[in-house]
Amino acid sequence: MNQRNLLIVSTSTVHGKGYLAYCEDAIKSFFDGIEEVIFIPFARPGGISHDEYTSVAKTKFNELGFKMRGLHEFDNPKKALEEAKAIFTGGGNTFVLLDQLINQGLIDVIQSKVSEGLRYMGTSAGSNITGLTINTTNDMPIVHPKTLNALALVPFNLNPHYLDPDPNSKHMGETRETRIKEFHAYNDQIVVGLREGSWLHVSGNKITLEGPLSARIFEKDKTPYELQPSDDFTFLMEQ
Amino acid sequence: MNQRNLLIVSTSTVHGKGYLAYCEDAIKSFFDGIEEVIFIPFARPGGISHDEYTSVAKTKFNELGFKMRGLHEFDNPKKALEEAKAIFTGGGNTFVLLDQLINQGLIDVIQSKVSEGLRYMGTSAGSNITGLTINTTNDMPIVHPKTLNALALVPFNLNPHYLDPDPNSKHMGETRETRIKEFHAYNDQIVVGLREGSWLHVSGNKITLEGPLSARIFEKDKTPYELQPSDDFTFLMEQ
Repeated sequence: MNQRNLLIVSTSTVHGKGYLAYCEDAIKSFFDGIEEVIFIPFARPGGISHDEYTSVAKTKFNELGFKMRGLHEFDNPKKALEEAKAIFTGGGNTFVLLDQLINQGLIDVIQSKVSEGLRYMGTSAGSNITGLTINTTNDMPIVHPKTLNALALVPFNLNPHYLDPDPNSKHMGETRETRIKEFHAYNDQIVVGLREGSWLHVSGNKITLEGPLSARIFEKDKTPYELQPSDDFTFLMEQ
Repeated sequence: MNQRNLLIVSTSTVHGKGYLAYCEDAIKSFFDGIEEVIFIPFARPGGISHDEYTSVAKTKFNELGFKMRGLHEFDNPKKALEEAKAIFTGGGNTFVLLDQLINQGLIDVIQSKVSEGLRYMGTSAGSNITGLTINTTNDMPIVHPKTLNALALVPFNLNPHYLDPDPNSKHMGETRETRIKEFHAYNDQIVVGLREGSWLHVSGNKITLEGPLSARIFEKDKTPYELQPSDDFTFLMEQ
């Protein structure tokens, strides 16, 4: 039985609020009883350093009552993950994040430890990699990982920062919905469009949508549809 | 001496106008004297078929006085390109486009024929692949090409559909400028942000920006800056 316990958060920050402020109650509850959370800073947004990024996350986690160290601070990151009780993977560039995890040989250890109960929280890129693949990231492919297969902690794909089409836009780039439709011309798995302000909580095979917004579900050859936090998301775990 | 002759167009369509309507004079002039243009439909926007996509392009090119066939209609696409006088590569998904060109073994023949004078027009994804790599595409990585190295018909990278930050946006996804800054944490080449309504015309080592708008130039470790159509872009070809 898979003991996974995941908090899959669309964005670290919503407009007009501080870093992780809007979901801090959920974070406190998710990591309840944990002394130290290991931060994975590899997605390094805007190219900032691992130290700088860890400092941002640590300030907030300390405020919430948790110790925090960056995974890059350990001589043996694999051993650090084997001994960790909880990890938080921050957002930034999903390609850079996945590439680092692959190159440091950390995919397997995260998968096996999560299935044994290591608590995993991700935001944005850190959420994207909980899916089967990162083929539905919004990020620019600034590096080229050898595979787009991700952690597969859940049996579907994520699109964090899901954005509805803007009816007033004069820009001709593809909408998010068009892009995910294109994805389904080549791939079969369900994609969950997770809007900013939403997160999924996965505990074993139980899954709930939290936050005030609905999520948009994309299934191959079906019209996309909305599910509310009160709806049953169990089918996502049963594929 | 490289005989390249390129029309690198940001978008096929600007808001409120028909397909290729806003730049049709430039297209007529670029392909002047050519009887038939070969269309490369591999980027297939929204997952439409190669036939459907070719039909869209052909209707417009016929109206402008050119014959057109899709590259997928030939039994031997490599031979078709060797014998072609002009090609037009349409937009869609840049990853799908590059993957097809690689898998069909067409990269080398396009590179060598373009250097001998085969006229090449691209829009959007078809423009993106004229750069050194597709690491600065806006597209979703719905397939995983074995490399992101592109046609390198010019010695820099492109960002078509370049979009200025929206000061009123409440969305927390990265701006295009932030993404390109991240690109420069891992890559050195200049990136040209080409706005919708703009195109570059490259003839040998001469390069001009056309259309009514400025372009945004991103150099590693420099503040991005604007260049007008009247400015000298020669430095881009001299790297």
